[in-house]
Parts: sequence; structure tokens; C-alpha cells
Amino acid sequence: MPETIVIKSDVERNAEWRDAFKDYDINVCFWNRVADKRLVDYALVWKPEPGSLRQFSNLKIIFSIGAGIDHLKGSDIVPPGIPVVRMVETSLTAGMVEYVCYHALRFHRFMPQYERYQREQQWRTIMPVPASARTIGILGLGVLGSAVAQALKPFGFRIAGWSRTAKRVGGVESYYGDSQLNAFLGQTDILVCLLPLTEQTRYILNAENLSKLPRGACLINAGRGRHQVQSDLIGLLDNGRLGGAALDVFEDEPLPQHDPLWSHPKISITPHVASMTTPSCGAQHVRDNITRFRLGKPLAHLANMERGY
Amino acid sequence: MPETIVIKSDVERNAEWRDAFKDYDINVCFWNRVADKRLVDYALVWKPEPGSLRQFSNLKIIFSIGAGIDHLKGSDIVPPGIPVVRMVETSLTAGMVEYVCYHALRFHRFMPQYERYQREQQWRTIMPVPASARTIGILGLGVLGSAVAQALKPFGFRIAGWSRTAKRVGGVESYYGDSQLNAFLGQTDILVCLLPLTEQTRYILNAENLSKLPRGACLINAGRGRHQVQSDLIGLLDNGRLGGAALDVFEDEPLPQHDPLWSHPKISITPHVASMTTPSCGAQHVRDNITRFRLGKPLAHLANMERGY
Repeated sequence: MPETIVIKSDVERNAEWRDAFKDYDINVCFWNRVADKRLVDYALVWKPEPGSLRQFSNLKIIFSIGAGIDHLKGSDIVPPGIPVVRMVETSLTAGMVEYVCYHALRFHRFMPQYERYQREQQWRTIMPVPASARTIGILGLGVLGSAVAQALKPFGFRIAGWSRTAKRVGGVESYYGDSQLNAFLGQTDILVCLLPLTEQTRYILNAENLSKLPRGACLINAGRGRHQVQSDLIGLLDNGRLGGAALDVFEDEPLPQHDPLWSHPKISITPHVASMTTPSCGAQHVRDNITRFRLGKPLAHLANMERGY
Repeated sequence: MPETIVIKSDVERNAEWRDAFKDYDINVCFWNRVADKRLVDYALVWKPEPGSLRQFSNLKIIFSIGAGIDHLKGSDIVPPGIPVVRMVETSLTAGMVEYVCYHALRFHRFMPQYERYQREQQWRTIMPVPASARTIGILGLGVLGSAVAQALKPFGFRIAGWSRTAKRVGGVESYYGDSQLNAFLGQTDILVCLLPLTEQTRYILNAENLSKLPRGACLINAGRGRHQVQSDLIGLLDNGRLGGAALDVFEDEPLPQHDPLWSHPKISITPHVASMTTPSCGAQHVRDNITRFRLGKPLAHLANMERGY
């Protein structure tokens, strides 16, 4: 008898997920529509409610639909002893590479200023800065951060990275740990946040840290909303300490109507779409891991819940 | 006695140009401030008036300050027998790569729509399209077109190119000549114009040709303003045949105040800044060619004035 996976995603994507698993030897069922909960072997989920995964008494693996596992932290979400696997798939990485390269080029080439000149019908040149004179600093050098670094390099930017522990990524000047954060920030013109959300990284994008960037530096946050202190950000943009911000994530999502971020002239907002899991690619990652599990091999991209990623 | 080069550039850049040549064994003088015209050996120019280069009776080479040489066409601009050299230098190429990648990612990721949603304070997702499902078609596969193709490839786009004569550029599906233009346009989702301006390419971006693109296709023109028929463009954007346009060049530059292009919601305007020659890099290219000339070697990037590039 084939095994069963339960999926909790945006309901509009259910058909796509069903389709993505159709050639695999596995039953697919959807959240709140599970006939026999004891027959569920795997769960592929986004933001399950506390206690909700406990209903599946024979659960073997929990797969996160997103790259981050912060939505699975908190008491009584992951039942004891059940392994959690992060989502790593090529389209999720590709989407993040596109989003960050777009916004890095946007800031690098003064595009927000040129948009203002267009609105004012002003034909006005800003002298270009060579990419080699810009340092892009990436907070988080995991799968996404490393891919973004590699994609930015051919443009000629100087690339620096910061991570919790020392990492070696080709062509990236690597910093790590609390003691090297100031040195990293002090020379970063465009700061990119791709960190996991953990106790250590929560609100890392606060006035104190962001004030260590060179004056006029820009921020791209495609990590989590709780990495940023939104009121601090507005203050630093208003007083010119920061030159601009591209935010894909927010403390509360959807971003509440009438939030001052929406209409801030120096902020670009996207609704948490920098990068999305594509069901066909995501299903393959899940399937590969199920095969490993059945063969008794170690799982790929197993999360360390203690560490937070 | 060292030789002399006369420079006709934006006057604000004169100091930079002087600086760029300071370590070279050559006298630098500026347009309209030449003491002895017979002592001028080389001219590095942008848009010289007809007849004006004739005043330098011992001129050996004319260097264009920009990549294109259309500003040197027309009767009595280039004195008979004087070779013309196109500007090819790394920062000029890098600037074009940045500009085109930026706008290609912008259209690919629906960024103009997301900017509208932000203005309307709407939290709304547009389902992403994988880069592999988009074809970027590049008109012109010379130095700039080839570099842009290579820079776009790592994102996973399908890349097609069209040129006057058959060209082979790795990873680019190449089309050439009038007979293959329709096939090229028919499958191009994002059209990039990097052509030289010649008799054959003037107004190539007209309603007839642009209507051969798939419905909703986007245009990036960083070639010359006279490649595009601006009234046709507005018509096609208004009726939805085209999805958007990023224009760096215009029939008249500066773009006249109150021109309807300025305020069109589907047009992004930059003031002919996609790519600029950097004096330090440009001077090196000039110097290398002067050395070749002195040694009797063929000039690099010699223009064919008949052909137009």
C-alpha cells in the first residue's frame, strides 16, 4: 500500500501540488480533509497551528514548504522525535537570486532616483559608480546566500558575507560571529538579509546595527519580517542615514493597510514573493528525501530545530 | 615631441579626461581651445559638427567617445581617408550589462505591477514564471549584445539573438538577416535593442515589427532613439499589445518636456545613461590603438563607415 503525505499550503496551490506528486508512488491528501489520520506518513506544511501535527500518530517526517523553519518553532508544533526537513529546491534558489540581483542593480544604478526624475520630467544624469567600488554584504551564507553571492560576482561587485560560524564561499570575503559583525557592516554599501530567523537574529536589522553601515547604504530584506525593526528603518531612511530599502517581508503579513511602510518614498514593497517553492521542484525534493528515508540513508537538509535552521 | 589629442566631450568631464591621459606620452587639448590646429594628431569626439574635423589638417585617427558611430555619419563630418575607431572598453560594456539585466529582471518579475500594488496598498501575489519559460531576444550581437547574452544566461532565460549577418554566440539561438527577423520576433518575450543605427535599422522598432512579438511582450531600447517609432510604441502599450517599455534613448535628446513618453505608466525612462564611457578605461583603449598605429599594426575596433558600425 502506498504511503500518504498531507499538505498544508495556500489552498489555491493544492491542485498544483497534487499534480506535482502524481507520478510518485504516494497518496496526497490536504489539510482538514484527511480521511484516516493514522495513515499519514509525511507532512509538507506551511505554518501549522500548535498541536495540529500531533493528530497524525504515525508521522515520520515533517517537510517545510518554505526555506525557513521558523514557522515550525514554538511549543507543541513539531511532535517530539519527528525530523524536520528544510525546503531546498532549484526554483526557490533561482527566485531569490533574481530578486536580490534585481534590487542590488536597482540601488547600484540609482534607479529609484531616475524614477523620481521621470515623474518630475527632469532629464538629469547621475554619474555612475563602477560595480567594483560597491560592496554588497550578505547576512547569511547558506544555500540562498551562497547562490546570491555567486550570481552577483560576475557584475564585478565586491561581495562580503556574514554568518554565525565561519564559512568559505569562493570570492566572498567572509565574516562570522558577533565579534565580526561591526567590521562586516562598516564596509557594506548594499546589505542583503537572507538569515534564518532565530533567537540570535531576531531584530538584527535595528537602528544600532544599521547605523554601522556607511551613510546612504541600502537594505534588501528577503529574510523574515522579524529581522527588521520597522520603526527604526523608517527613522534611518527619513534622516538620510539609509538611502533606500527593498522589503519583501514584514513583522505582520499581510502588511496592514495604512502601515506607513506602504507609502514611504524610499521603500520598495513586495508581498513575500521574493522566492516561492514551485510544487514540481518541491515535490521532487520531498520524494528524494522519502527515498533516502526508506533506504535508511541520512535525510538531506535536515533542520536542527535547536539551532533554528 | 609628444603627439596631441583633441577631445570633444561633455565639458564637465574634461578634467576627468585630462586626468585619464596624464600618464601617457600625449598632449591633451579640448575642443575650441586648440592653440595650433596643425599639431593635432588624434581626435576623441562625441557629435562633432559637420566640417569641424577638417580644421585639423594632420589628423590621423578619429576615436568615437561612444560605442555607436552614427554621430559621425552624415556628409562632411569625417574627412576622407581618416580611420574611425569605435569605443570598446570594459566599463562601457559592464554598464550595458547592468542596465539590461536590471530591466529584464524587472519585467520578468512583474516589478512594475508590484510597484502599482504598493501605491494602491494592495498585498497581492502574481504567480512567478520560471526564467526558463521566458525568451529574451537581443537585436544586435556585437560586443555589447554578446556580453548581455552571457550575463543573462546564468539566470536561466532562453536567449535568442538577431544580427545582420550570421553570428555564433555560445548558448544563444542566432537569427540573421531580414528573412529571419519574423521568426526571431515571434518567440521573444523581452526584446532588447542594442543595434547600431544604420539605414537598415532606422525605425526597426515600429508597429509592424513590434506587433510580431507575443502579446504582452516588453521592450528594452538601449540602442538609439531613432530605432523606435515613439508614436507606434505608445499605441501598442495603450492597446495592451506590448506590456511595457524601458527606454534609455529617444528621437530627440534631451526628451522634450511635456513629451507624452515622460508620464506614460508603462514606460521607464532614463536619460541616455544605460552605459557611459569611463575616461580612465576609454583613454586606455585610445592609447592601445595609438600604440598599434605607431607600430603599423591594424587598429582594433576600426569602424566600417559604409556599414555603419
